[in-house]
Amino acid sequence: MKGDPRRRDLAAYPWSLTLETRFADMDVNRHLNNVAIARFFEETRIRFNWGLIARNELSQRPHYLVAHVAVDYLGEGGYPDPVTMTYAVGHIGTSSFRCLMGMFQNGGCIALCDSVLVHRGPAGPSPLPAELRTRLEAFPLAG
Amino acid sequence: MKGDPRRRDLAAYPWSLTLETRFADMDVNRHLNNVAIARFFEETRIRFNWGLIARNELSQRPHYLVAHVAVDYLGEGGYPDPVTMTYAVGHIGTSSFRCLMGMFQNGGCIALCDSVLVHRGPAGPSPLPAELRTRLEAFPLAG
Amino acid sequence: MKGDPRRRDLAAYPWSLTLETRFADMDVNRHLNNVAIARFFEETRIRFNWGLIARNELSQRPHYLVAHVAVDYLGEGGYPDPVTMTYAVGHIGTSSFRCLMGMFQNGGCIALCDSVLVHRGPAGPSPLPAELRTRLEAFPLAG
Amino acid sequence: MKGDPRRRDLAAYPWSLTLETRFADMDVNRHLNNVAIARFFEETRIRFNWGLIARNELSQRPHYLVAHVAVDYLGEGGYPDPVTMTYAVGHIGTSSFRCLMGMFQNGGCIALCDSVLVHRGPAGPSPLPAELRTRLEAFPLAG
Repeated sequence: MKGDPRRRDLAAYPWSLTLETRFADMDVNRHLNNVAIARFFEETRIRFNWGLIARNELSQRPHYLVAHVAVDYLGEGGYPDPVTMTYAVGHIGTSSFRCLMGMFQNGGCIALCDSVLVHRGPAGPSPLPAELRTRLEAFPLAG
Repeated sequence: MKGDPRRRDLAAYPWSLTLETRFADMDVNRHLNNVAIARFFEETRIRFNWGLIARNELSQRPHYLVAHVAVDYLGEGGYPDPVTMTYAVGHIGTSSFRCLMGMFQNGGCIALCDSVLVHRGPAGPSPLPAELRTRLEAFPLAG
Repeated sequence: MKGDPRRRDLAAYPWSLTLETRFADMDVNRHLNNVAIARFFEETRIRFNWGLIARNELSQRPHYLVAHVAVDYLGEGGYPDPVTMTYAVGHIGTSSFRCLMGMFQNGGCIALCDSVLVHRGPAGPSPLPAELRTRLEAFPLAG
Repeated sequence: MKGDPRRRDLAAYPWSLTLETRFADMDVNRHLNNVAIARFFEETRIRFNWGLIARNELSQRPHYLVAHVAVDYLGEGGYPDPVTMTYAVGHIGTSSFRCLMGMFQNGGCIALCDSVLVHRGPAGPSPLPAELRTRLEAFPLAG
């Protein structure tokens, strides 16, 4: 992740949202805790998916299993400033895709996250529906 | 708390802020968890105090011990809608005061909270400084 | 709560369990956070109820709404020492009861909690079943 | 991680501990939440390091920055059963090392985690002290 300079460039991502920080996101070191940062990436994944649903861009709500999450911690985050979370869709496979996220505060990139989401049908992993694949393809990382 | 109708009236409070909800604030019942609601009240207390400091309304930052917290749960809260948190200052004693808070979502009051904050000096509880007392007196519950 | 000396006496409670503390239970002050302490009381309530079920002492699983939680914070808690949580049943009403809890660490009482749990049927609050009432009556505070 | 069968073998790890699960570790899906699982790995890292200190195996307490965390989610975890967390030291570099962890419940491996910890001196990353390196070398993955 951190080896690709585009990943630290807020403008390279096609989707972003701002999230509030909370006092409880800090740990004894007075910075945003590493696991709290993973929590911000979870919220970002969910808000992105919820946005597709809320805008009626999908005829049915997809369900995912999170198979893999990796975070590079690049800088310290603080409270109470908000954070800007960015989202792009990376490799799209048969029944899973990779989402590429960034976390920015006061102009600097403080963390990057890659997650692999597996599309889940009634009996386990199932191929990504065509309409979902098309929507996901609309959110590549730029550059 | 819940016996006083003013407490459920958003307009009766002199101070409020909006906070985002997070997916992680829900528990297995798909509602905002009771302890997560206590977390929202903590954030509200801290943001109110931080606001006094940020606006340079106090010459020194007060430190508090939370001695008591009571919450009445009045309704179910949901995700992803934001919540409006309200704050008023109740009884002001020699070295402590009571803060009166409410939590509203989509027009309804879902929880009330009373907290007792004890002003803390280097050697334990200490009288509220005069300028702090004056500031606190400016935030009564209306009516 | 804190006015009743029995409440600070570990031996006065008919039921207790030990819980681990976690690094994440601390906040920037390097003590167990107030809301994290409320989390310990939630866990205690749930483990007590789960214990009644697990021992087949009830023919059906009761469902509760938490209507009220009040916590008195009496001392600072630390990590990584475990805590001992105590539980007793206080006043039993028609469709609700009060549970009385304590939190102890290294021999000292660091917090007390009263919660009001409302028995919930399919259509809202419903009378406590007789067998549940009988079980609850078996856990009074001593003295 | 998940490609190496040793990683799913509890017996291949030189160090382990049991941790309690909490009701609050579950999310709306009634399983241990992904971020809660990351929290268990945080606790495991900290308890391992704390153990070295507590046994006086180091003359000074090391400080680390967590630079990278990756988790493979392999199965669903539940509440209230405890989990067994395992720990081994992987590659040891000049100023950082990789820790290899596993999470097991009821005999099955539910998650794996790799973390990169950077040794931190007063002015940023600093070489691992010789005595720390020696201690870390004593915890390889078996096989």
